[in-house]
Amino acid sequence: MRKILVIGSGKSTSYLIKYLLDKSTSENLHITIGDLHIKNAEKLIGNYENATAITLDVFNENSRVEAIKNADIVVSMLPARFHIEVAKNCITYKKHMVTASYVSPEMQALHDDAKANGLVLMNEIGVDPGIDHMSAMQVLDNIRSKGGKIILFESFTGGLVAPESDTNLWNYKFTWNPRNVVVAGQGSAAKFLQEGTYKYIPYNRLFRRTEFLEVDGFGRFEVYANRDSLKYQSVYGLDNIKTLYRGTMRRVGFSRAWNIFVTLGMTDDSYTIDDSENMSYRDFVNAFLTYSPTDSVELKLRHALKIDQDDIVWDKLVELDIFNDKKRVELKKATPAQILQKILMDSWTLKEDDKDMIVMYHKFGYELNGKKHQIDATMVAVGEDQTYTAMAKTVGLPVAIATLAILNKKITTPGVQMPITKEVYEPILEELKDFGVQFNEKDVPYLGYNPLNN
Amino acid sequence: MRKILVIGSGKSTSYLIKYLLDKSTSENLHITIGDLHIKNAEKLIGNYENATAITLDVFNENSRVEAIKNADIVVSMLPARFHIEVAKNCITYKKHMVTASYVSPEMQALHDDAKANGLVLMNEIGVDPGIDHMSAMQVLDNIRSKGGKIILFESFTGGLVAPESDTNLWNYKFTWNPRNVVVAGQGSAAKFLQEGTYKYIPYNRLFRRTEFLEVDGFGRFEVYANRDSLKYQSVYGLDNIKTLYRGTMRRVGFSRAWNIFVTLGMTDDSYTIDDSENMSYRDFVNAFLTYSPTDSVELKLRHALKIDQDDIVWDKLVELDIFNDKKRVELKKATPAQILQKILMDSWTLKEDDKDMIVMYHKFGYELNGKKHQIDATMVAVGEDQTYTAMAKTVGLPVAIATLAILNKKITTPGVQMPITKEVYEPILEELKDFGVQFNEKDVPYLGYNPLNN
Repeated sequence: MRKILVIGSGKSTSYLIKYLLDKSTSENLHITIGDLHIKNAEKLIGNYENATAITLDVFNENSRVEAIKNADIVVSMLPARFHIEVAKNCITYKKHMVTASYVSPEMQALHDDAKANGLVLMNEIGVDPGIDHMSAMQVLDNIRSKGGKIILFESFTGGLVAPESDTNLWNYKFTWNPRNVVVAGQGSAAKFLQEGTYKYIPYNRLFRRTEFLEVDGFGRFEVYANRDSLKYQSVYGLDNIKTLYRGTMRRVGFSRAWNIFVTLGMTDDSYTIDDSENMSYRDFVNAFLTYSPTDSVELKLRHALKIDQDDIVWDKLVELDIFNDKKRVELKKATPAQILQKILMDSWTLKEDDKDMIVMYHKFGYELNGKKHQIDATMVAVGEDQTYTAMAKTVGLPVAIATLAILNKKITTPGVQMPITKEVYEPILEELKDFGVQFNEKDVPYLGYNPLNN
Repeated sequence: MRKILVIGSGKSTSYLIKYLLDKSTSENLHITIGDLHIKNAEKLIGNYENATAITLDVFNENSRVEAIKNADIVVSMLPARFHIEVAKNCITYKKHMVTASYVSPEMQALHDDAKANGLVLMNEIGVDPGIDHMSAMQVLDNIRSKGGKIILFESFTGGLVAPESDTNLWNYKFTWNPRNVVVAGQGSAAKFLQEGTYKYIPYNRLFRRTEFLEVDGFGRFEVYANRDSLKYQSVYGLDNIKTLYRGTMRRVGFSRAWNIFVTLGMTDDSYTIDDSENMSYRDFVNAFLTYSPTDSVELKLRHALKIDQDDIVWDKLVELDIFNDKKRVELKKATPAQILQKILMDSWTLKEDDKDMIVMYHKFGYELNGKKHQIDATMVAVGEDQTYTAMAKTVGLPVAIATLAILNKKITTPGVQMPITKEVYEPILEELKDFGVQFNEKDVPYLGYNPLNN
């Protein structure tokens, strides 16, 4: 029996564990799932044999080391900050390791040790990061192998609600960590490359500089820029590219409405409000508007942001019940962002039978034989239910497939790795198709940002 | 002879040194001015006797200690971060000390030592902080001594250009550190109290939530909120006040135009631009606008910020020459804020015969015998030339008067002090009148923010 240790059994592990369990007999696997609370692990294991749920506190060194020593490969599905101690133990006890998280500087520092020991420490092999890397690199490598020169790469991902569960005016529900949604885009200006020049968008403009995208069968989306579009420029081999832009997808209209919260200051996470506990939702909104003994909070907001009487954006605010003077914030010494998150969770929490959806859209512009071309590649994954979500599928399956491929010595390049080489992305993308995770590639006229190009 | 050591002979020391020199014979003073470069000190001393300029490097402990040991009182006019070592030496060698800077936590920590040694460490005794404290406390103490209850305190200060030198569309020139003007208001939201509730204004709204003020003989000004209006709430004894608001004064129209820079992201100081050195001013503006192969930077900016063809704000931008494609930024790896500062310094640097102006405006609302009242107090100081500026006058004279008063044992309360007690503010405000620095107090109807109050 080959022994796989999966640490963590949270939301994103359902497909990962199911994949390994389904293969456990044919591939001769035993899967140990370690978590602080084993209830969910036991539920995921169900009637499968060849699997054990164990109580594991990752901060308890003895039990952590014991579990790792007993495994042939370790999958860490904990939050990113918990990976590093596991990774160090993996090197000590010569175990391969797989995570879906961004490579931290501490993780990167283990590269030489991992390499010297012939160990694969595979990271960023979920959906974003993960499937985005693999699907992009496959097309980029293809274009380059034909002699094409890449001039444009744009890449967008969105974690959204499935069309059949899309029941509110924002066309949005929380399918992942709500906090990340509330504070998205804060900090330094978003930076990207557009036709050879750097462009910068400050936070207060981020949600007003959106672009539209169409996905066959799913209609129109909008995107706002990520903080750092240039992060993978060198990794992807795009040092001389003209346009490099990465962004986050929402349904059209979300960003214009969201910008109201940004403008008023409701997404600020840098200070706390003294008496937040006893504030009503209405008091919270009013804290960002001028005082008036007579004018309503509604009219003050309309006036401050110049919102017309018949603007649909207003209905989005009303739908969230932010003008309610009975509902209490109930959070002590909370930041505006924490209060806003609570208000949004009232409206945007998935219901029991709601399904989520992951959408990805890449644009590749290139020159070949003196002509400009473009490939658009799109992928949509829809969840089955609240356990088998699209998020769990697209995060967990690449992790699971990579884990088995490493165990079977199909992925062997040692060191701290990301899934950007053919050795890794080709078999994984191929197998993902069996699960319906598949890119639809189309040749389209090269547009760039310059109508004179055509 | 009583010996006064003045450390630093920069911009704000002209009146300070002149005051002490003028009193040096009658008061039996010798003034030593220590600076890294003594040229300006020598110029300020001129033909006066009883004064010496010495080369002093404040980071050289031996020469610093030597100079302090030789003095009866020390005035530090260095930037605030350099005071603390001087202050520690003053305690060791039992010397009084005066600064115009905010009390730092390190300075505050010396309170008990200073008190035990009977030493006065007087701080915040320039203009803002300084004259604002003194003039406010005098009126507040007066109202309270009559049995009045303070319900509103608003206080505004502006460092501006004198009307006779006010020659540009912004009605503004740099009369103090330009960098502080460019980054003003950044960080957490501005917080203040309005009719009993906390209000918050995020940076992106700060320059759009201005209020107007009229000063007799000087016309209309506008104010935007300071970051923390509540800083002196307890110090001033205003714990139960309904409205507490502090702000910065500009001429009307400045803030609406300034907000264009804020909105585009040009005031950001948190990241650097790679090739800033070779950028033209026009390139800099364009970095914050969408790419277009055809549309002009001008039209893209007008469209992004919805600036009408006939809006005066446009002329303010043009006046700064920000669309010039010949003028180079010339700063290596500069932040947007640094680049904007350079562009503004082309236009807003004082000319040789320009004069500056300090304006201060306080509003005091109070209840007495069941009725609401208001006192408005205003002060305007205009500079004589580029040496004897209004800034140097209003910063330096309170420092100088306090220094002599401490030496003459008229101010004796030991410890780390601010000028908020009658012992300090009364003689100083009285003597400032001889120099034309005087508040004009008026009883006006109490307005508050509530028309129903009247």
